[in-house]
Amino acid sequence: MWNQLDISGWKERRRGDISGVLGAVRDIIDLIERDGDLALLDLTKRFDRIELETPVIFPEEVEEAYEEVDERLVEALCEAEARITRFHELQKSRSLWLEEVEPGVTLGVRTRPLDRVGCYVPGGRAAYPSTVLMTAIPARVAGVPEICCCTPPPADSLTLVAMDIAGVTECYRVGGAQAIASMALGTETIRPVDKIVGPGNVYVTAAKMLLRDQVEIDFPAGPSEIGIIADMTADPSYIAADVLAQAEHDPHSASVLVTTDAGVAERVGSEIARMLASAPRREIIEQALSQSGYVIASSRSEAVRLMEAIAPEHLSLQVADPMALLSEVGHAGSIFVGPYTPVACGDYASGTNHVLPTAGYAKVHSGLDVQHFCTRSQVQILTEEGLSAIGDVVEALAEAEGLYGHAESVRVRRRG
Amino acid sequence: MWNQLDISGWKERRRGDISGVLGAVRDIIDLIERDGDLALLDLTKRFDRIELETPVIFPEEVEEAYEEVDERLVEALCEAEARITRFHELQKSRSLWLEEVEPGVTLGVRTRPLDRVGCYVPGGRAAYPSTVLMTAIPARVAGVPEICCCTPPPADSLTLVAMDIAGVTECYRVGGAQAIASMALGTETIRPVDKIVGPGNVYVTAAKMLLRDQVEIDFPAGPSEIGIIADMTADPSYIAADVLAQAEHDPHSASVLVTTDAGVAERVGSEIARMLASAPRREIIEQALSQSGYVIASSRSEAVRLMEAIAPEHLSLQVADPMALLSEVGHAGSIFVGPYTPVACGDYASGTNHVLPTAGYAKVHSGLDVQHFCTRSQVQILTEEGLSAIGDVVEALAEAEGLYGHAESVRVRRRG
Repeated sequence: MWNQLDISGWKERRRGDISGVLGAVRDIIDLIERDGDLALLDLTKRFDRIELETPVIFPEEVEEAYEEVDERLVEALCEAEARITRFHELQKSRSLWLEEVEPGVTLGVRTRPLDRVGCYVPGGRAAYPSTVLMTAIPARVAGVPEICCCTPPPADSLTLVAMDIAGVTECYRVGGAQAIASMALGTETIRPVDKIVGPGNVYVTAAKMLLRDQVEIDFPAGPSEIGIIADMTADPSYIAADVLAQAEHDPHSASVLVTTDAGVAERVGSEIARMLASAPRREIIEQALSQSGYVIASSRSEAVRLMEAIAPEHLSLQVADPMALLSEVGHAGSIFVGPYTPVACGDYASGTNHVLPTAGYAKVHSGLDVQHFCTRSQVQILTEEGLSAIGDVVEALAEAEGLYGHAESVRVRRRG
Repeated sequence: MWNQLDISGWKERRRGDISGVLGAVRDIIDLIERDGDLALLDLTKRFDRIELETPVIFPEEVEEAYEEVDERLVEALCEAEARITRFHELQKSRSLWLEEVEPGVTLGVRTRPLDRVGCYVPGGRAAYPSTVLMTAIPARVAGVPEICCCTPPPADSLTLVAMDIAGVTECYRVGGAQAIASMALGTETIRPVDKIVGPGNVYVTAAKMLLRDQVEIDFPAGPSEIGIIADMTADPSYIAADVLAQAEHDPHSASVLVTTDAGVAERVGSEIARMLASAPRREIIEQALSQSGYVIASSRSEAVRLMEAIAPEHLSLQVADPMALLSEVGHAGSIFVGPYTPVACGDYASGTNHVLPTAGYAKVHSGLDVQHFCTRSQVQILTEEGLSAIGDVVEALAEAEGLYGHAESVRVRRRG
């Protein structure tokens, strides 16, 4: 159950194959494109077995939801919201910086929030109010004026409360590929958005991939995973708890422990066996453990190299000198440093985001943050002097490329 | 030839339809995947009518290329390289920032360069050494250790020299969809890259879109375009020169002048007619002008609103108070402020990048910059005290979502 793991081909194995659902998802997209709201309600009836009159969640429903939720949980959501907002505020860039790099040549970057975004929050059997916070807060902090949020019906009260706390501006009760298609293409009720973010099942992912030339997405998402680098100083019960937390998400979740200490790997196995006995969601956990395990590295640098090939969604550093390791390790979605930093903290309330690239996508993608909700425009301001300083180079290169009109657009201004 | 333009449906009209080439491009991808280098050389023979023994451009060839190029042009490339490097250096983020947001809770972001990227530089009939600089320099400044560059054969000497000056680490003589497929999937000679950047024709764009779940790309690219906002103070000959420079790129290029002054629009038309008489590349220009023109706005704010719907690749502000307008205008790839800042300067040597989103994609994408070549990992470091401060919230929310193992991973540490 907790064995040595072969991590060759990790990336390929972790990337879920969406080809099996592409046909069905394309049909859903076509239906939404053709019939709009009518298709939306029909598909909801078919897949969620719920008959809706409208996908809209009205403000009165949100108000009522507050009545139904334990006050302590509302407070916990508010506390999480404050911490997530605080950290995402720290990520903001100046809206404009300019620097005169030489006399008369001023260059810079203007940062501007996107106009309208869509957050997808999975649901159905479970509810993920935390994902409402993680998708909507970075958008709100970036300054996005229109934040729409879709979640599958029935949409529980805590999720509705989270939408209110996070500052979502439009709430819809719609899930799956039909939600993605509606936000990408628009219906009579849901106006199209510029970008869709948030996790989802294979249908949601397939819809995001198929619609990617019409709407921007955050990144392809798959089942959750953790990579742990540990040495002999690590506490096996902490590692075991992190592995079980990872495993309870989904039967396809995976954990990889890379350690220079075979004893630690073994003790983690014993702890897992002990904790599993009393764990809820045991069936899911056991399936996830079947694709999890440990790798023994001959040295710390080999451990770093092995983890580099995985580029895990979550990377936990449980070693004697985690800060030194932080500067050595490769790409990862989010990094958890030291023994007192379980992934669960980042999932809910430390302030960092939990919408992260999986399956090796961390090699090129960054976890959700304020930058995902902004564009950067490069800016240049030349004076007559500045133009004269760089004009000769521009004219020479333009003519070398056969673009005479480009050279002429400089000359006409230099003639004065 | 220079008339009022209907800009409704701009985005849709500007997005080239790749569906006509998808089948052919998929065949090329399959061939590269199956036969590697053999397919690469075969496709090069078929499409470029050149028989190669290897796609590799060897260092000796680059050395020889220097001999063949006008020294003045080498100097111009070096000057452009210095300016582009200087501006891109200003964009760099700290490799790690950390802030203790409350006692025992330290959060931050680690920025890390990508491991291996591919730059595509179009060629064939024309050569674009400037695009070598614009794609490779941001990667080099970001710290990417492996930068490979593909350009169609024969690959002229100036382009080879530009690869050397820009700091490209591997040079290949291969173009079109086969170049994109080789960099995405790998062949015996070309190892796969993590991200591909750079412009290209419809085959290149189709290949980038089809391979997008296997390799990250910069953004979909299409024919070049400019949006100009001008008032009565603008010089019609400057605007006309910018329109002609835009038009000479490609028969599908487009220019839109939005102005509150009908007189300016008319005078620009006269200037275009006058300048066109002596312009090289006249046939291309005339085709591009057929999809270009002006829009009269009733007010400055209407001008801003109209341009917002276009989100142009290049945005030129030729008004009395361009700095005020800069803070009002919507998304754009790159912004050129004031009368002495022709787009041609940004194309070659002011230091800003010329690889920019077109066809309204500037609403969600940023022009090529250092950030395109980095990932950001969120980082968290909790102490026992920090974990205790946020533990209750994490436990409450984890249990509300039914993720008991998440709560347990906090509890096991709090028990000490």
